[in-house]
Amino acid sequence: MSDKIRLASVGLGRWARVLARAARRSDIIELHSCFSRSEEACAAFMDGFQVPKSAASYEELLADPDVEGVIITTPNDTHRELVTQGLEAGKAVYTDKPIAQTLDDALAIKAAVYRTGGVFAVGHSARRLAGCRVMKEWIVDGTLGGVSLIEANFSNERGLELTPRTWRWYRSKTPGGPLIQLGVHHADNLQYLMGPVRSVSAHQRKLYTESEVPDATMAILEFESGALGYLGCGWASPGIYQIRVQGTKQNLIYDLDFTHWDESHEADQWSTLLSQAYGEQERSPVEMPPTDMFREQLEEFALAARGQADVEVDADAAIRALAVVHAAIASNDRGGQAVEIAELTTGA
Amino acid sequence: MSDKIRLASVGLGRWARVLARAARRSDIIELHSCFSRSEEACAAFMDGFQVPKSAASYEELLADPDVEGVIITTPNDTHRELVTQGLEAGKAVYTDKPIAQTLDDALAIKAAVYRTGGVFAVGHSARRLAGCRVMKEWIVDGTLGGVSLIEANFSNERGLELTPRTWRWYRSKTPGGPLIQLGVHHADNLQYLMGPVRSVSAHQRKLYTESEVPDATMAILEFESGALGYLGCGWASPGIYQIRVQGTKQNLIYDLDFTHWDESHEADQWSTLLSQAYGEQERSPVEMPPTDMFREQLEEFALAARGQADVEVDADAAIRALAVVHAAIASNDRGGQAVEIAELTTGA
Repeated sequence: MSDKIRLASVGLGRWARVLARAARRSDIIELHSCFSRSEEACAAFMDGFQVPKSAASYEELLADPDVEGVIITTPNDTHRELVTQGLEAGKAVYTDKPIAQTLDDALAIKAAVYRTGGVFAVGHSARRLAGCRVMKEWIVDGTLGGVSLIEANFSNERGLELTPRTWRWYRSKTPGGPLIQLGVHHADNLQYLMGPVRSVSAHQRKLYTESEVPDATMAILEFESGALGYLGCGWASPGIYQIRVQGTKQNLIYDLDFTHWDESHEADQWSTLLSQAYGEQERSPVEMPPTDMFREQLEEFALAARGQADVEVDADAAIRALAVVHAAIASNDRGGQAVEIAELTTGA
Repeated sequence: MSDKIRLASVGLGRWARVLARAARRSDIIELHSCFSRSEEACAAFMDGFQVPKSAASYEELLADPDVEGVIITTPNDTHRELVTQGLEAGKAVYTDKPIAQTLDDALAIKAAVYRTGGVFAVGHSARRLAGCRVMKEWIVDGTLGGVSLIEANFSNERGLELTPRTWRWYRSKTPGGPLIQLGVHHADNLQYLMGPVRSVSAHQRKLYTESEVPDATMAILEFESGALGYLGCGWASPGIYQIRVQGTKQNLIYDLDFTHWDESHEADQWSTLLSQAYGEQERSPVEMPPTDMFREQLEEFALAARGQADVEVDADAAIRALAVVHAAIASNDRGGQAVEIAELTTGA
């Protein structure tokens, strides 16, 4: 057996395959086992990614001493149970964003991490895109000067294409609609860039989708630093993925064509980062060292499973992102009144 | 004497000169008289723009039977008195945006317009820029489909350069800071494009300016149509002027380098309008028939003074723009709670 770090995939849908392709780009990861309730999905996954084993149940997978960490890509409302079970079995656990559907579930996961002392990582990969990394660098090293406003938008046409056959159609499964599916990425990006959010004021509308969820959402974020953030998420228009930071010395404007997101070793090529200096209107392209967000986060997770790395996005960071989403939903329910993050995460 | 329409300029600062240059590009306007408390300013204006007369007082200017309309470019808090006097003297009156500093003043102006039956126009020129005109066309003719989100930002570095010698330094003269100076343009643009705003939720911050006014403001606008709008205005970063509209069939993204704003016959050349169709990430430039916003609005005003045209931006439209600014200020004072426009404009 090689010395590669042995991970197992749970929930073998589209996203498991995206991550499996990233794992295959890594020299240190071996996909060693897998589990899905569908036998066909197991067989196809083993075949497609040369995975040597599959387990007949999640319990069997967790009982395999060769498995060092599990990659969970099941629906959001299953995260709590699967993550907790994995941690209690002594495995390192990776789950995709959001950490969970509800803050209750997220806090229970955090408690399990503390209780077990286990390794836990959340796939908030978007902050690892080259543009976001360079923005962070320019903020931290003072190149931007003092930041007053940061605006982000992540929108696509999904709400116009939903049918009752997908879980995203239902309010109970996708509270907030595009805000929890798309917006949670920027809720993490913005706090990665600007530090914690203190409160959120938001408005949501259901305008063109036939589903149960809103397709237009706007939120204003008050950062603890004093700066203001904006988060726009729509599910009823062509796609937008943008972050714009306004500093006293420079602005930075980042745009991504997210249709290439899945192939994360190529995603940066479909992005632009423009800088605009004080007194200038002209914007100049900023060079970005290429990244491979999915590979990087899986390698970090795998190394963390062996105690050789720290996880960047842990339960706390992921809870902060989810809390912004739920604060926005609560704010909309209160007619746009600002909702304090602390109100929702007491005990966190 | 030619048959040109004879207008007079009042308040002969930088903005009067911008408009005078636009008037000179017109074949139907003659700048016939002018008034400023500074004799030097009068002399320079007459000389610079071949204006045959100047008046020793505003009253004298208004008593001149040759003057058909007056162009007021004095500070915002003087508009009420000067506009009312002009209308009562039977002159057509043009004033620059905002219509007034306070809603009380604006409502008094509106009452004077009704009382006198006079012609009154406000210089909300930005909606006349080619990009805004094309956006309006695409919204009205259905090319965009249903619009759910519209976002606008107008920011510049002014707040970092203010000194106590300018009126913009003081809260009493510039309530809301960049929101009343810059944001009021978009408050008009957005309502021009999307119809009336019903309520505003806003947050303001004073972060980097040494002046008394905020330098960071964000507002969410609820339109009566149900769509959501965002308005960001900063005074502490390099300049941004953008409007982005998200429709079910198309997005439109408009950017303007506003440093060429003053030369309005060339301003469109420094702008881009990109469209993005459903299912596409690529954005394509949209052709825009050139405009000359200052010339067009002055010609419209001049013709209206003779009963040969209607004014596009009247007291009602200008009050709607100002009300968004004041609703945002009130909302910030209430911690971001949504403020209904109707609450502020009762009686309008």
